[in-house]
Amino acid sequence: MKEVKGGVCAPLGFQATGIHCGIRKNKTKKDLSLIVSDVMCHAASTYTLNKVKGAPIVVTKQHLLNGEAKAIICNSGNANTCNPNGEDIANQVCELCADALNIKADDIIVASTGVIGQPLDITPFQTHMDKLVSSLNNNGSEAACEGIMTTDTVKKEYAVEFELSGQTCHIGAIAKGSGMIHPNMATMLAFVTTDVAISKEMLNTVIQEVVADTFNMVSVDGDTSTNDMLSVMANGLAKNNIIIDKDADYEVFKEALMYICICLSKGIAKDGEGATKLLTCTVSHACSVQDAKTVAKSVITSSLFKAAMFGKDANWGRILCAIGYCDASYDVDKIEVHLASQAGQILVCQNGRGYPFDEDEALKVLSEDEIDVLINLHDGSHHATAWGCDLTYDYVKINGDYRT
Amino acid sequence: MKEVKGGVCAPLGFQATGIHCGIRKNKTKKDLSLIVSDVMCHAASTYTLNKVKGAPIVVTKQHLLNGEAKAIICNSGNANTCNPNGEDIANQVCELCADALNIKADDIIVASTGVIGQPLDITPFQTHMDKLVSSLNNNGSEAACEGIMTTDTVKKEYAVEFELSGQTCHIGAIAKGSGMIHPNMATMLAFVTTDVAISKEMLNTVIQEVVADTFNMVSVDGDTSTNDMLSVMANGLAKNNIIIDKDADYEVFKEALMYICICLSKGIAKDGEGATKLLTCTVSHACSVQDAKTVAKSVITSSLFKAAMFGKDANWGRILCAIGYCDASYDVDKIEVHLASQAGQILVCQNGRGYPFDEDEALKVLSEDEIDVLINLHDGSHHATAWGCDLTYDYVKINGDYRT
Repeated sequence: MKEVKGGVCAPLGFQATGIHCGIRKNKTKKDLSLIVSDVMCHAASTYTLNKVKGAPIVVTKQHLLNGEAKAIICNSGNANTCNPNGEDIANQVCELCADALNIKADDIIVASTGVIGQPLDITPFQTHMDKLVSSLNNNGSEAACEGIMTTDTVKKEYAVEFELSGQTCHIGAIAKGSGMIHPNMATMLAFVTTDVAISKEMLNTVIQEVVADTFNMVSVDGDTSTNDMLSVMANGLAKNNIIIDKDADYEVFKEALMYICICLSKGIAKDGEGATKLLTCTVSHACSVQDAKTVAKSVITSSLFKAAMFGKDANWGRILCAIGYCDASYDVDKIEVHLASQAGQILVCQNGRGYPFDEDEALKVLSEDEIDVLINLHDGSHHATAWGCDLTYDYVKINGDYRT
Repeated sequence: MKEVKGGVCAPLGFQATGIHCGIRKNKTKKDLSLIVSDVMCHAASTYTLNKVKGAPIVVTKQHLLNGEAKAIICNSGNANTCNPNGEDIANQVCELCADALNIKADDIIVASTGVIGQPLDITPFQTHMDKLVSSLNNNGSEAACEGIMTTDTVKKEYAVEFELSGQTCHIGAIAKGSGMIHPNMATMLAFVTTDVAISKEMLNTVIQEVVADTFNMVSVDGDTSTNDMLSVMANGLAKNNIIIDKDADYEVFKEALMYICICLSKGIAKDGEGATKLLTCTVSHACSVQDAKTVAKSVITSSLFKAAMFGKDANWGRILCAIGYCDASYDVDKIEVHLASQAGQILVCQNGRGYPFDEDEALKVLSEDEIDVLINLHDGSHHATAWGCDLTYDYVKINGDYRT
C-alpha cells in the first residue's frame, strides 16, 4: 500500500468539484461540493448518534436503504438542522442534483454543515446546480474538499493505492472536522471513494469496524454534533474479485481504509478549533479493547488535561484523574504513564504513583506540536488509541465570539 | 428558616480556625483549617466516585465507620493523592491533631486539596498543630473557609437558623471548589456543621438525598476530582427531639440542608475557574427526574454552550446539540427553550425548531452575570436543575500556565 495523490478522484471513475454558490456570504469561500461516480456504487454510511439529527442525515439514510449511490452533494455554511422544512429542502437539493446529472434522486447522498437552526434557502442550489455539475472533473478532489470546510484551517484529503487479486485498487477520501462556520455547530464529515469491488454487506461491515477505531476515537470538545456522517462509495471499477466475505482481500481493504481513516482522524484532531497540538493517547495492556478505548477517550477529552498540554505542563495527575473517573476496569496501583514526542520520552507515573522526572526535559518533550500519552495499565493484552487536541485561548475565542 | 452569620460556628458548640502553617509558599495564604465540636457528633460523608482517590478520603472513610466524629482538619496546597506514603501522612496528621485536642485520632475527619502526586511533608503539621488548636474560636468559620481555598476567588460560607420541636436549630457550612492551587487538580470540599439531634442513619440518608440534587448537579469542567468530599457533623446541642425517621422534622432539616447546599453549589459554579457567569439550567416536564438531570447536566457541561455564554451568543443550537447527545428520554419535536436573566426572557426554540428572536434583546439578556436556561421537554412532570459556569480565556490561562 502506498499513498497517492488525487483524493476522492484517485479511484477509477470518480469526478469531483467544489464551487461558491452563495450560501456563505464570503464569495472567496467555496460552499457546495459534488462527488460523482461514472457507474453505480455500493454505498454505506455511518451517522451521528445525536438524537437531534440534521435533515440531510434523515434523507441520506432513506436513500441508502438499497445500499446504492452514484453521487454525494454537500454544502457548507448551513447545517440544515432543526429547521421546520429541513427534509423538504434536502430532498429538493437531491432532485435538482439528480436532474442535472440525469440520475435518480435516491441515488444521491446529501450532507450539510454550518449553523444549526437557520432556514436553508434553496435558491443558491437552483441557480448554481448546472455550474456545479459542468465543473466536475478528474482533479476536483481539492475543490470538493474546500467546499465542505468551515473553520478548518487545513485540507484533509488522502488517497492510497494497493493490490487485490492482481488488480490495482484505490481508496480516496476527504473530510472536514472540528470547525464551525458560525459558532453554532460542530460537524465531522468524511466522504470516501473506492474503485474496489465489494458487496454491500461487506462494505457496511468494514466501515463499522473501521469507524469504531478511528473517527469514534477522536474528540475535540466532547460535543457530538448533529450532522456527523461518513459515507463510502465503492464502484468496483478496479475489477478485483468482488469481496463477499471476511477473507484476506477484506483484510487488505480494511487495512487500507483504516490507514485513510486514521490519517483523516489525526487531521481532524490536529485541526481542532484553536488547537496548537495533536494529542495521541495510546492505552496498552488493558483487560479489554473497550477498557482501553474508554481510558484513552477519557484522557483525550479532559479539559484540564487539554489545557495542561497547551501550557506544556507535565501534570500527569490530571491524566490519573481522568482515568479515575472513567467507567473502565483496571488497577490504579499498576498504572504507568509516559509522555513522549519527537523530543524524547519521560516516565511520569509508575504503579499509580508519581515518578521523579526532570522538568526541563518534560518541557522539551511537551514543546513539540505532536504529543503522545502512553498509558500502560499492566492489566491485560488489549490496546486502543484516541486522538485529540489541546484546549487554547483560540478555542474560547472561536466559540465565544458574538455572531455578527 | 432564615440565613444567619457565623458559618460553621453558627450551630451551638462548634469552634473553628484557619492558619498558615507552611504547606503553601505564599505566607499570606492560610493553608490549614480545623473545625471542632465541644461534644461527640454523629457524622457522615459523601466522597468522590473517582477511582483514583486521595489518601485523606481513604483514612476518613475508615474513621467514619462508626458514624461519629469530633473534628475536621483540612489542608490546602497539596492533595496528598497518588503519593506512596499518602495514607501514612494522613494518619499522622490525625494523630498530631488528636494529641493536641486530647481526642481519639479516629474521631477526626481529614481532607486535603492541592497538587496531585507531590509528597506531603508532615513537618508543617508538627510545628503548627499547637498554634492551630490554640487559635480555635467561636468566630473562626471565616478563617477556616480561607484555609481551604485554592484558586477560589470568593469565600463560600453559609448558615441558616430554623426550628425543630420548639428548639432553635442551625446548620452552618463552608466549601471550596472549582479551584486549583497548582494547575494539577480540582477539588470540591464542603464541611457542614449542625446542632440538630439526628440519628446516624438519618444523617447518612439526608446527605445522600441532598447531595444528589445539589453538588452532584454542578459542573465546572467535567473533570471529577480525586478528593471531592462533603462531611456533616451533627452534635445534637439544639436539643430538638432526635430525628430517627423520615418524619416532618426530617423534611424541615432536609429543606434547610438543601438550602445551604444549593447556596454552596451555586457559589462553587459561579466561582468556577475563570468564570464570568453563573449558568443555571432548569429542565422541566421530563419523563423522570433522571431524564431531567441528565439533560440539565449535559447542557451545563457542553464546552460549546459554555463558550457561547461567555460570548453572550444566543446560539440555542448548541443547547439542542447537547440535549441530543445525552442519554435521556424525550421527544426532540417537543423541546422548548428559553434564555433568561434579570434583563428579561426570550423564547429561542419551540417544538425543537428555531423561534425567531430579537438579537439585541438576546444580547441584553445574556449580558447579565447570572443566566438561566429553561428547557421544557413537554413530556412529563419531573424537573431538575444543574449549575455551571462559562468557559473563558481565563479558564485556559489558569489551567494552561506552566508550573513554576
